[in-house]
Amino acid sequence: MSVKIYLQEDEMPRQWYNLAADLPHPPQPPLGPDGNPIGPDQLAAVFPMNLIEQEVSPQRWIDIPEKVLELLARWRPTPLHRAVFLEKALGTPAKIYYKNESVSPAGSHKPNTAVAQAYYNKEFGIKKLTTETGAGQWGSALAFATSLLGMECKVYMVRISFDQKPFRKLLMQTWGATCIPSPSDQTQAGRDILAKTPDTPGSLGIAISEAIEEAVSDPKGETRYSLGSVLNHVMLHQTIIGLETKKQLAKFGEKKPDIVIGCAGGGSNFAGLSFPFLADKIAGDDITVIPVEPTSCPTMTRAPYAYDHGDVARMTPLLPMHSLGHEFIPPPIHAGGLRYHGMSPLVSQAIMEGLLEPRAVHQLECYEAALLFARTEGLVVAPETSHAIAVAIQEAKKAKEEGKEKVIVFNLSGHGLMDLAGYDAYFQGKLQDYSLPEEDLVASTRILDNYPKPKVFAGV
Amino acid sequence: MSVKIYLQEDEMPRQWYNLAADLPHPPQPPLGPDGNPIGPDQLAAVFPMNLIEQEVSPQRWIDIPEKVLELLARWRPTPLHRAVFLEKALGTPAKIYYKNESVSPAGSHKPNTAVAQAYYNKEFGIKKLTTETGAGQWGSALAFATSLLGMECKVYMVRISFDQKPFRKLLMQTWGATCIPSPSDQTQAGRDILAKTPDTPGSLGIAISEAIEEAVSDPKGETRYSLGSVLNHVMLHQTIIGLETKKQLAKFGEKKPDIVIGCAGGGSNFAGLSFPFLADKIAGDDITVIPVEPTSCPTMTRAPYAYDHGDVARMTPLLPMHSLGHEFIPPPIHAGGLRYHGMSPLVSQAIMEGLLEPRAVHQLECYEAALLFARTEGLVVAPETSHAIAVAIQEAKKAKEEGKEKVIVFNLSGHGLMDLAGYDAYFQGKLQDYSLPEEDLVASTRILDNYPKPKVFAGV
Repeated sequence: MSVKIYLQEDEMPRQWYNLAADLPHPPQPPLGPDGNPIGPDQLAAVFPMNLIEQEVSPQRWIDIPEKVLELLARWRPTPLHRAVFLEKALGTPAKIYYKNESVSPAGSHKPNTAVAQAYYNKEFGIKKLTTETGAGQWGSALAFATSLLGMECKVYMVRISFDQKPFRKLLMQTWGATCIPSPSDQTQAGRDILAKTPDTPGSLGIAISEAIEEAVSDPKGETRYSLGSVLNHVMLHQTIIGLETKKQLAKFGEKKPDIVIGCAGGGSNFAGLSFPFLADKIAGDDITVIPVEPTSCPTMTRAPYAYDHGDVARMTPLLPMHSLGHEFIPPPIHAGGLRYHGMSPLVSQAIMEGLLEPRAVHQLECYEAALLFARTEGLVVAPETSHAIAVAIQEAKKAKEEGKEKVIVFNLSGHGLMDLAGYDAYFQGKLQDYSLPEEDLVASTRILDNYPKPKVFAGV
Repeated sequence: MSVKIYLQEDEMPRQWYNLAADLPHPPQPPLGPDGNPIGPDQLAAVFPMNLIEQEVSPQRWIDIPEKVLELLARWRPTPLHRAVFLEKALGTPAKIYYKNESVSPAGSHKPNTAVAQAYYNKEFGIKKLTTETGAGQWGSALAFATSLLGMECKVYMVRISFDQKPFRKLLMQTWGATCIPSPSDQTQAGRDILAKTPDTPGSLGIAISEAIEEAVSDPKGETRYSLGSVLNHVMLHQTIIGLETKKQLAKFGEKKPDIVIGCAGGGSNFAGLSFPFLADKIAGDDITVIPVEPTSCPTMTRAPYAYDHGDVARMTPLLPMHSLGHEFIPPPIHAGGLRYHGMSPLVSQAIMEGLLEPRAVHQLECYEAALLFARTEGLVVAPETSHAIAVAIQEAKKAKEEGKEKVIVFNLSGHGLMDLAGYDAYFQGKLQDYSLPEEDLVASTRILDNYPKPKVFAGV
């Protein structure tokens, strides 16, 4: 029996899939500080126009440029595995498949959009990209992509991560990027913060401010900013994951999955796997689609659907999304990629349309799932990915109880080789489960009352 | 144009290739302390008999058990890439291909033999494997393999590495292995050393002694020792690399390579890629085959072919091989896997038969090559692997000078995501080139005068 299916390069999807074309209701626009919809021109200093066009495109299919396909072919198509050893350990009649995005050079799905964004920026005449990074996954992916395209890259890394995670920084440097701790003395935003609080550990909000400031203040106009999740064009670029998975499932002899699972922080790896299957669900297929988040940062399962800023410093437009409020500070759990206060507007709307069944899981269950997975399937996954595995195991156990041969697919979004400190904390019994208290949720979402409310859909 | 070729699982080789069958002269036997050849029985307390049979087998092809194929299919066949971006950067007419062994769950070629050894031990009724590890690559691979087979695994890790490289240890623990610092108080060998030198940083020699002692002193006889390189059966298991590469080159439209390159510490990744091509070379094909080592540990390029022990503590039989003397202590360079004093007897004999053209390279050239590779091809390689890349670049430049469209293949034996400290030292200008002084070579090889001399072949 085959345990994994490779596709050849000539079987790679030639187009990305845009869920916006198929959602029952059209997406709601981002709003400016005045509460009015903002147009493409207002984003032009931050992003190149060709990506802004993708951001607002209503087209169902968007061609992947040949050059991007060539770059993606460095590691794509990625394998789809059948988790035969895990199935056996669980004694389940379910068939569990996982798409292995950990085989990219940066170790996650992030390069799928990094490569596309770098390409479009270069096409537009941009020479340098700036971005922020927390734990370092996204910064590494963009450093990788810009190095392939011969572009400059500057990464503002949250200072505490910069100091505590020297290897991610070295990885970016190996790919030729400049990675500096944020706040820095290289931007006004950074200098202001340093003047007030010289010993600050930094935050993603500050790093975003610095990266955007550097991009928009390039006198030659040859610098832009790049974001690794949340936005529509990022979700679009990731759909290659699900489109490949469909072809591979067919080669495994499966007509359709019963259950599709991905972890969701900003939403991009989840969207990448699931959106192409949502198209089939909208067309009538019976598919359960589950985005998974930690109970400590319950954006999808408990936060309101509201207009909110994407960053703490309120430099981004207001986006319609599930949000815990842009000042929400999640407790320190190790799945750094799942600690974001908001959620991709497209994923958020799909929840509101009744297309998704979000689920929150506790941290200890996730590590337990990751360990079982490592000791059966052999792959050591990122703490974020462990959330998807935990729910795949929940569903496989349920299939066992029900005696049903369900087809479960999840996205193995990244490996954990550079995140072993989290496993260490788990081994040492230092981790605890944590649910966000209701009063904290109420307090952190109060800020949303300041903004206009998005329309709410029938699916709720 | 295709930049990489995948094979499907049903295209995996079904047999390993044994170079011993085709060498112009038969391999010379290992010798006991008395200078007489030792037989299989004398190894039976250390290795299971089915692996000992492979160790001494004269058969050309040895079937890969179905169960081993199933385990290898977790990540094999591995892709063969064409390095189009590197070629372009070098402006070479040469075509450069690399076999990507870094996609295994442990990140290197090591699991190819770890999985096979664990399987044969389990077949033989063994419940637990012991081994030593320096930097941790081999220990991780064996931990991975034993976890898939539900066996126990105990890894003695050189104390200084155990303290300095906590992530490798955590990786082994994640796969369920026990990893302890050596010397330990769990063996007589360890206790003796600790009594004399309580603050010792440990050494590979001590760790080997501890691992073997634990294996042979199991009163139930259910424990054996496992070695990750040097021995014939290890080379055998790795030949799947070269056998796959042949099929993939054919799909790229290449009849044969002109140049085959691998880095060589104990010899296993080099042998894995090159031995199947050596069969063609012996049959008359014009192929240049180059094992690469650091100038700081010039086993193949400068050390004599002699009988020597495989370990500092002289617990192994005498093996016929190129050796710097078993007390040789290489200077601390970062390519930990290339610091071994000896070399696989099969690789050593192939050198003596005139089949190989070993080359030594300096450390700075290797890191320079690794950086160029990272910034063109996108993969961050292990410091060991950078030696193979350096020589691939040398050969590609030579092809440019000669105006020849040569076909170059090298083995990308592992990624460097857990070895970024070496890159850091390079960036900071802390690394220096170093050639072993002639007087040090003379001094360290003097110990070889104590042992019988192997026969020397016509090829020299």
